Amino acid sequence: MFLVRYQKDNAAHYGHLEGETIGAITGDVFGDFARGGPVAQLAEVVLLPPCAPSKIIALSVNFADRLRELGLAAPELPAISLMAPSALLGAHQPIRLPAHAREVLPGAELAVVIGRAGRWISPEEARAHILGYTCANALSALDIAEVDQSWTRASNFDTFLPLGPAIATHVDPTELVVGCSVNGVPRQMATTHDMLFTVEQVIAFVSAAMTLNAGDLILMGTPAGGQPLAPGDVVEVQIEGIGALRNPVVREA
Amino acid sequence: MFLVRYQKDNAAHYGHLEGETIGAITGDVFGDFARGGPVAQLAEVVLLPPCAPSKIIALSVNFADRLRELGLAAPELPAISLMAPSALLGAHQPIRLPAHAREVLPGAELAVVIGRAGRWISPEEARAHILGYTCANALSALDIAEVDQSWTRASNFDTFLPLGPAIATHVDPTELVVGCSVNGVPRQMATTHDMLFTVEQVIAFVSAAMTLNAGDLILMGTPAGGQPLAPGDVVEVQIEGIGALRNPVVREA
Repeated sequence: MFLVRYQKDNAAHYGHLEGETIGAITGDVFGDFARGGPVAQLAEVVLLPPCAPSKIIALSVNFADRLRELGLAAPELPAISLMAPSALLGAHQPIRLPAHAREVLPGAELAVVIGRAGRWISPEEARAHILGYTCANALSALDIAEVDQSWTRASNFDTFLPLGPAIATHVDPTELVVGCSVNGVPRQMATTHDMLFTVEQVIAFVSAAMTLNAGDLILMGTPAGGQPLAPGDVVEVQIEGIGALRNPVVREA
Repeated sequence: MFLVRYQKDNAAHYGHLEGETIGAITGDVFGDFARGGPVAQLAEVVLLPPCAPSKIIALSVNFADRLRELGLAAPELPAISLMAPSALLGAHQPIRLPAHAREVLPGAELAVVIGRAGRWISPEEARAHILGYTCANALSALDIAEVDQSWTRASNFDTFLPLGPAIATHVDPTELVVGCSVNGVPRQMATTHDMLFTVEQVIAFVSAAMTLNAGDLILMGTPAGGQPLAPGDVVEVQIEGIGALRNPVVREA
């Protein structure tokens, strides 16, 4: 099943997607819910990020090729950081490049959506706490990171975290191709088989420190190959079995 | 005025505090609201963190004495990081020291509560976006930070961010004494006059990157002098004109 969150009549709604048709959801997607009949066509609505997380945890480096690109040794533990929900952006909405940022790189990431809250979740229990998976594009301004000697501001500008278009609830995350293309040209490509830490390991590690809440997001790191974006570009993150997250790029006015 | 958020009958309520008496609030504390008559005594209710932020921005180093303690040069720009709302804890609730963390230090901080959302807020406009100020205790596990070479996990364990007890809405933040005591013994003491960056400067800097939402928190950094806590300790953050935030310390079971 593919779950979308969309705006209609000034309110946010969940729906399930069948082809280009959105069907109704009654109940709570993080609890009990039922699927209903068609309510809208995909083209008629504005897609929102498919969840509204209370926190977003991102793995700094989790792909072998990205480690090689950065010249880093493999970390012994997952290297995590937090991201601001205010950076989230829906599919098709424009990524705004800040006037004072010159080198903004895209970063295709597998995003894990927590479905059931927990603390001290074991790797064996982890799957039962997952609602599903979606595509994320974790952008960062390399020049800002260098000035700040920190990724916090560089990675958390408004619009720097496109997410969606849908949450795929029945996917095995262990062997998926994660890619990013810019104007149709492939720039990043790796498989989740090459992740240093698995989804289950990361959920266990993080939840040993902090409670994971329903709707919280874990971003599983990006492969090598991100190149600076320019206004007018169209950037697309593709994850097989999950979807394609496409956003145009503009210069912030 | 002092605003508190408390739990009663399984729901969260805002109230205004007069001495030991909580008065009703009708409306939205982030919009239009009115004060009503007494509804409870402070001792009868469980205090919650006085806001539920969509994000928490913390200044890593912002006090001159803390820079000297760390042997660092003054940063040219505010050094910001993000914290997890799941770490928040109400006044009087127990701080739980994780079994695998040995050196957990307290950190008294002035916390700024955003009242009105904004982006590109100028220093001159910043005060109009502030609801008020409260006390924060930003704890961190020094040994975990050393293992991870990062503060993210070390600073975001559940219960590592006591906040409260109340939001003081009429305070001038420029000359306040910020202190922390453990078992009644003073451990940290500085004045906000010695902050490297002012509240207004930080709001301008952060909001040039990301939208600040009503209820969001900015933590203004901690002075020098934090020492490891032990189970059985009682730690108290005091900020003059704002209040005293007291929490007992236990070992996580």
